[in-house]
Amino acid sequence: MQIYQREFTLRAPKRGFHLVTDAVVRELPELSGISMGTLHLFIRHTSASLTINENCDSSVRGDMERYFTDTVDSHNSTFIHTYEGDDDMPAHIKSSLLGASLTIPVTDGRLALGTWQGIYLGEHRDRPGGRSIVATIMGV
Amino acid sequence: MQIYQREFTLRAPKRGFHLVTDAVVRELPELSGISMGTLHLFIRHTSASLTINENCDSSVRGDMERYFTDTVDSHNSTFIHTYEGDDDMPAHIKSSLLGASLTIPVTDGRLALGTWQGIYLGEHRDRPGGRSIVATIMGV
Amino acid sequence: MQIYQREFTLRAPKRGFHLVTDAVVRELPELSGISMGTLHLFIRHTSASLTINENCDSSVRGDMERYFTDTVDSHNSTFIHTYEGDDDMPAHIKSSLLGASLTIPVTDGRLALGTWQGIYLGEHRDRPGGRSIVATIMGV
Repeated sequence: MQIYQREFTLRAPKRGFHLVTDAVVRELPELSGISMGTLHLFIRHTSASLTINENCDSSVRGDMERYFTDTVDSHNSTFIHTYEGDDDMPAHIKSSLLGASLTIPVTDGRLALGTWQGIYLGEHRDRPGGRSIVATIMGV
Repeated sequence: MQIYQREFTLRAPKRGFHLVTDAVVRELPELSGISMGTLHLFIRHTSASLTINENCDSSVRGDMERYFTDTVDSHNSTFIHTYEGDDDMPAHIKSSLLGASLTIPVTDGRLALGTWQGIYLGEHRDRPGGRSIVATIMGV
Repeated sequence: MQIYQREFTLRAPKRGFHLVTDAVVRELPELSGISMGTLHLFIRHTSASLTINENCDSSVRGDMERYFTDTVDSHNSTFIHTYEGDDDMPAHIKSSLLGASLTIPVTDGRLALGTWQGIYLGEHRDRPGGRSIVATIMGV
């Protein structure tokens, strides 16, 4: 068994969901040497998320952003944790709903994603900063 | 450390949540040789999901399906990505809310699930097809 | 590669979200010997959850509890699975929304959490009991 761990930064151009599959793979040259294993990705922040969804039509990312804004930000009047801005507590909730990490199988040196699957970075703050990602690869 | 990876297909009889613990275990004879480790399951689709929930009363699966239909499909009028049908964009959102993968501990050759836990396949399209699952077992 | 697996119990003082990072680390002395790897945590129950969120301001935990009560328990009149009480079916849904497990990278003998990240136990029943957790550490 081999194991590799790397930390790198992703930066979303604005609030919303962004396809980052290629950006992630570019950071991980070790993937190509793994014939069978897993990639674990972990975002070290509580107002952003990682999820897997449709990789082709950008309207899916737009609809996701609209859905989560409609259902979560609409509860703002009930929140007490508001001193970091109206986007902060909704961002925390989205991070827990969508998750801070992903595990993806690796097969024959590549992510074993389905044809229509891509990795999304969910950026839930209005003013995005760099997002630190820890990647751990295990396999043979 | 040992590692095994297999791909197999699950097929839900209809839209909704379906208990697939036994179907999954049947595909993975290698589990019985693992005294300590993990099983990672990954569904290679963006309109279905894998989650863990109550394994006994089928009304839980019905209530889950009702809840996610009520809360997600009700936003259909706000979606732009609609050309694959009314069930498509809600299916993508459910897939991200519930998740495309699961990691379950393996102990003494068996999944270390709690007494009341089972693996659910969430089929979120009205007309289900076969769903490809990649299983990765690591352990000793 | 090394692998360790342990089972231990967490007990929330009441329904809601509780910061358990220190309680988890205390149960896992093996973490300090791992220079690079992952910790997988799995809760063996269907009415509780594990998630990662803000570790500093307790009002985040309060707002999370309010949000999930407002959005999930409000559907109680539509549920069929009600014989275990009004908190039961909402607890199952929260468990699937938030997840029954977490994988966290381990680096230099410590959890590689971000500065503001902590492990939350989500206790979704009104009368909490002990919650069994299976922890699996893999790494070098």
